Amino acid sequence: MIRTHEAGTLRAEHAGQTVTLSGWVARRRDHGGVIFVDLRDASGVAQVVFREGEMAERAHSLRAEYCIKVTGEVARRPEGNENPEIATGGVEVLVTELTVLSEAAPLPFQLDEHLTVGEDVRLRHRYLDLRRGGPARAMRMRSEANRIAREVLHAEKFVEVETPTLTRSTPEGARDFLVPARLQPGSWYALPQSPQLFKQLLMVGGLERYYQIARCYRDEDFRADRQPEFTQLDIEMSFVEQDDVIALGEKVIAALWKELADHEIQLPIQRMTYADAMARYGTDKPDLRFGLELTELTEYFKDTPFRVFKAPYVGSVVMPGGADQPRRQLDAWQEWAKQRGAKGLAYVLVNADGTLGGPVAKNLSEAERDGLAKVTGANPGDCVFFAANTPAEARALLGAARVEIGHRLGLIDESAWSFVWVVDAPMFEEAEAARSAGDVAVGGGRWTAVHHAFTSPNPDWIDRFESDPGNALAYAYDIVCNGNEIGGGSIRIHQADVQKRVFEVMGISEAAAEEKFGFLLEAFKFGPPPHGGIAFGWDRTVMLLAGEPSIRDVIAFPKTGGGYDPLTAAPAPITPEQRKEAGVDFKPAQPKADKAEHAGR
Amino acid sequence: MIRTHEAGTLRAEHAGQTVTLSGWVARRRDHGGVIFVDLRDASGVAQVVFREGEMAERAHSLRAEYCIKVTGEVARRPEGNENPEIATGGVEVLVTELTVLSEAAPLPFQLDEHLTVGEDVRLRHRYLDLRRGGPARAMRMRSEANRIAREVLHAEKFVEVETPTLTRSTPEGARDFLVPARLQPGSWYALPQSPQLFKQLLMVGGLERYYQIARCYRDEDFRADRQPEFTQLDIEMSFVEQDDVIALGEKVIAALWKELADHEIQLPIQRMTYADAMARYGTDKPDLRFGLELTELTEYFKDTPFRVFKAPYVGSVVMPGGADQPRRQLDAWQEWAKQRGAKGLAYVLVNADGTLGGPVAKNLSEAERDGLAKVTGANPGDCVFFAANTPAEARALLGAARVEIGHRLGLIDESAWSFVWVVDAPMFEEAEAARSAGDVAVGGGRWTAVHHAFTSPNPDWIDRFESDPGNALAYAYDIVCNGNEIGGGSIRIHQADVQKRVFEVMGISEAAAEEKFGFLLEAFKFGPPPHGGIAFGWDRTVMLLAGEPSIRDVIAFPKTGGGYDPLTAAPAPITPEQRKEAGVDFKPAQPKADKAEHAGR
Repeated sequence: MIRTHEAGTLRAEHAGQTVTLSGWVARRRDHGGVIFVDLRDASGVAQVVFREGEMAERAHSLRAEYCIKVTGEVARRPEGNENPEIATGGVEVLVTELTVLSEAAPLPFQLDEHLTVGEDVRLRHRYLDLRRGGPARAMRMRSEANRIAREVLHAEKFVEVETPTLTRSTPEGARDFLVPARLQPGSWYALPQSPQLFKQLLMVGGLERYYQIARCYRDEDFRADRQPEFTQLDIEMSFVEQDDVIALGEKVIAALWKELADHEIQLPIQRMTYADAMARYGTDKPDLRFGLELTELTEYFKDTPFRVFKAPYVGSVVMPGGADQPRRQLDAWQEWAKQRGAKGLAYVLVNADGTLGGPVAKNLSEAERDGLAKVTGANPGDCVFFAANTPAEARALLGAARVEIGHRLGLIDESAWSFVWVVDAPMFEEAEAARSAGDVAVGGGRWTAVHHAFTSPNPDWIDRFESDPGNALAYAYDIVCNGNEIGGGSIRIHQADVQKRVFEVMGISEAAAEEKFGFLLEAFKFGPPPHGGIAFGWDRTVMLLAGEPSIRDVIAFPKTGGGYDPLTAAPAPITPEQRKEAGVDFKPAQPKADKAEHAGR
Repeated sequence: MIRTHEAGTLRAEHAGQTVTLSGWVARRRDHGGVIFVDLRDASGVAQVVFREGEMAERAHSLRAEYCIKVTGEVARRPEGNENPEIATGGVEVLVTELTVLSEAAPLPFQLDEHLTVGEDVRLRHRYLDLRRGGPARAMRMRSEANRIAREVLHAEKFVEVETPTLTRSTPEGARDFLVPARLQPGSWYALPQSPQLFKQLLMVGGLERYYQIARCYRDEDFRADRQPEFTQLDIEMSFVEQDDVIALGEKVIAALWKELADHEIQLPIQRMTYADAMARYGTDKPDLRFGLELTELTEYFKDTPFRVFKAPYVGSVVMPGGADQPRRQLDAWQEWAKQRGAKGLAYVLVNADGTLGGPVAKNLSEAERDGLAKVTGANPGDCVFFAANTPAEARALLGAARVEIGHRLGLIDESAWSFVWVVDAPMFEEAEAARSAGDVAVGGGRWTAVHHAFTSPNPDWIDRFESDPGNALAYAYDIVCNGNEIGGGSIRIHQADVQKRVFEVMGISEAAAEEKFGFLLEAFKFGPPPHGGIAFGWDRTVMLLAGEPSIRDVIAFPKTGGGYDPLTAAPAPITPEQRKEAGVDFKPAQPKADKAEHAGR
């Protein structure tokens, strides 16, 4: 080793020892001929001192982020010069030998905790960014998260299995990254969106308990905080029911939060039905760190004279103390709603004297006005926001307004952790709605799967889901932390007849099923066990644990908008030779058999 | 859970308890109205008994690999019926409830330990293959190998970091798998052949100790036992020298072999120079489980009258007792040599009386004949094989002959483990030779890097490698187990001037270096630490630990020849829509700036 000690480990008991340290010049201070350098390595920082004379002269050439090796004696710092803020603050090293291991050019940005440069510059020089405390800690925490999760899973007899990443294009093919197969020109691999099909095959294979921290790929149009490659902690189990998978998921989550966030999660974690979450919070990922539940008013306004409230759903959310917002703030709420695709955000102000203000109030009937504060739970001084639309759209708007109110009013305890399982999600959604939301609807029927085509109906619905597909419930569960979905899964279908009925609802013909999932259906002919699983979005989970605002902060070399890597400048054009070599432009010749047939006629 | 106990855990002390088991019908035997089923789950096998009457009647429909759930009372087996060969052999379950969880179609092959079907059938139904004991054990051992290696590395403060897999095409681009970037039509990602560049960037980033069990991709023409995607345990360390990386590598290897092969490796593992390995064993991955070293005879034959032996190198290897091989066996050796690209394999038989036989002997001078047995170490009754050619080709042939002899004569103790570090490998090889061996020669010079362009010369050569590139030695090391290279690495160049000199030897201009490795060279301007690392070929390592003959046996879903997956039939043709969507055929428009320029002229 090119050192005897790690810089951050020096303590008073090392005084008198000669040590060799290696690391980076974090800071240099000249004090009347004596030069002090904060030498940083992965373990921390130590002060090294170059005394007047030759050593100081040589140290004079040191610049920020030079990589150096120094040898010298450890000494207690002179009284009054200790720095209690760092672990090595009681000592310093009096340097007698200095080697510059490598020099550093002037830095594109200073390596402080608070940066003034944009993310692009940071990521272009990510190797410098990672020398900063915060990013380095995030990397180490991610590594620890992996270790902790694996320990839980190994203790539970899970087997870690690597599944292939050069695979067959799946039915959601439009989101697949493709890879030309040079050795089979005209054929392509696809990078997997998840190991879903392979983990189900492993269950058919009798492995019973599988996990993998798996790289996944999805070629999405860029959305904020999405990466074209991402990681999930992927888990699948055999001979289980929903409660078994949830219990296992809780063990993983509890261990992570205990060790990395010093937070004891009370188990079991509460559960909420999807229907409840949508009704009370307007979202399937409710942030339960604060109240402000939605109120449904459809019935209340069923005979309303106000045209806007003649809608399939009317609901409200209260902004405490919101009645005294100035007009321009109330206008800003309208802008906020419009940016989310709504027409606006209707409101009523409950004045201190109990009268109602705002443009909506006068459109309501007297009875509606009289009962409004009570039915919405508003107090004098509050503002009531309304949405009237389809239930889905109105709730989405009110749910977002609720979170926005929570942030603006500081109702959210940022140090709190709130977990909830959202269960009993719908089995199907209308294919048209899925498509217009930008999702891929598999199958040609009116209905498509919300989760995926192999998700089982729950025990209540398994015998009758086709009688009412719109209300049928899946045996699926999502785990939500502080309003973020961090994982989700389902019990899968293992009965051939149930699978067939699900395909029928989705309008997937036998031939289409065979073409799309043939190899999985073939496997399911050979005694598939009941099975189910869960996958945690690992980037997001670690992001929350690390208290970082973006998943990019917990990825070593993240990509930015459009899947671009500012460091390596990938993706990049390829040469015509590469293109030719890869067989990208191969055009299949007419099969010889065909030609012979034609010739013979 | 759809069971109360795992089948393999039942013991005599469970007698009297009512249990529920779930698993597969491994075997069914009808004994006069009573039906015995071996029920298998991941934990093992238990005998379950369906007594005469209704239960037996229902059990009659059970077929091999049905997935079932049974409930019944555990009972000690009647005296004389115990099976001491299985852990549950003292008990059986008297079934009172049977549920068929799913049925199985007739199997494409019987799930016995010894199969009669080919590998293709096995892999097409890999989910059935994995229900067999051997494949299931191999998967579990691989998972354990991961756990053990990670434990060693975590104890040594290594940080696990995921590096990107959608990256920029590297200089060895001809072996890169490419991925079209839909969001940047005309640009492509490449799948990484290794995390090499990123792990070096992490060292520049001050992470100091990195590891990853990393998926790597190489688009090679198919060779036996190669996979287009493969896994390496990838490690990099800062502030280290060769001995540090080797010591760390030994800790990993020692822990794996101790826990998984019950074998205590004596540390430190012996080292051998590359030159020694080539001279004595004709290979850089010598199998040291047996002797039979090569003898160089170039000097001995320097004045030989035999035209064939007038070569840059002549050497021999002895086959003990080989003198009495029948003529057709000696002919078969010629065939064997020809299949390896040699013209043949010259031999001399040392007869029992000390005289020499075979066609070569009469071409030698009397003095050469007289001294031959002594100089080659042959005894009466032995056969001496010769090769005369360039040192590289002759040694390759003799080295292969040595291993073949070892196998044929049973000289190799298959239960033994032999490890050796091969160090001081050459830094450069002639570019022409690399190309004709099918490798990619980077740079336009006479010399190319054997390892890669960032490998440091060793301390002896670092100041003078350009004076004699053909003999300069790299600071590189390979770990060899029983004749298999299972890992290798090097100390990297961290000094800008050394890197520049290496590029010069390789004929890489500054502009070319910038284009090929620009982002790494840029990073190296900012105080790169001395660093080095190692990567273990994880598939091969686990294959050896598991005692399997092929890496395909330790991969869950391996590909066969040409990168084909018999299970999913990947790769596969894509639709014109997919092709269009992926932007494969995007032709960049002429840049507008150019047009304007032209127009302005």
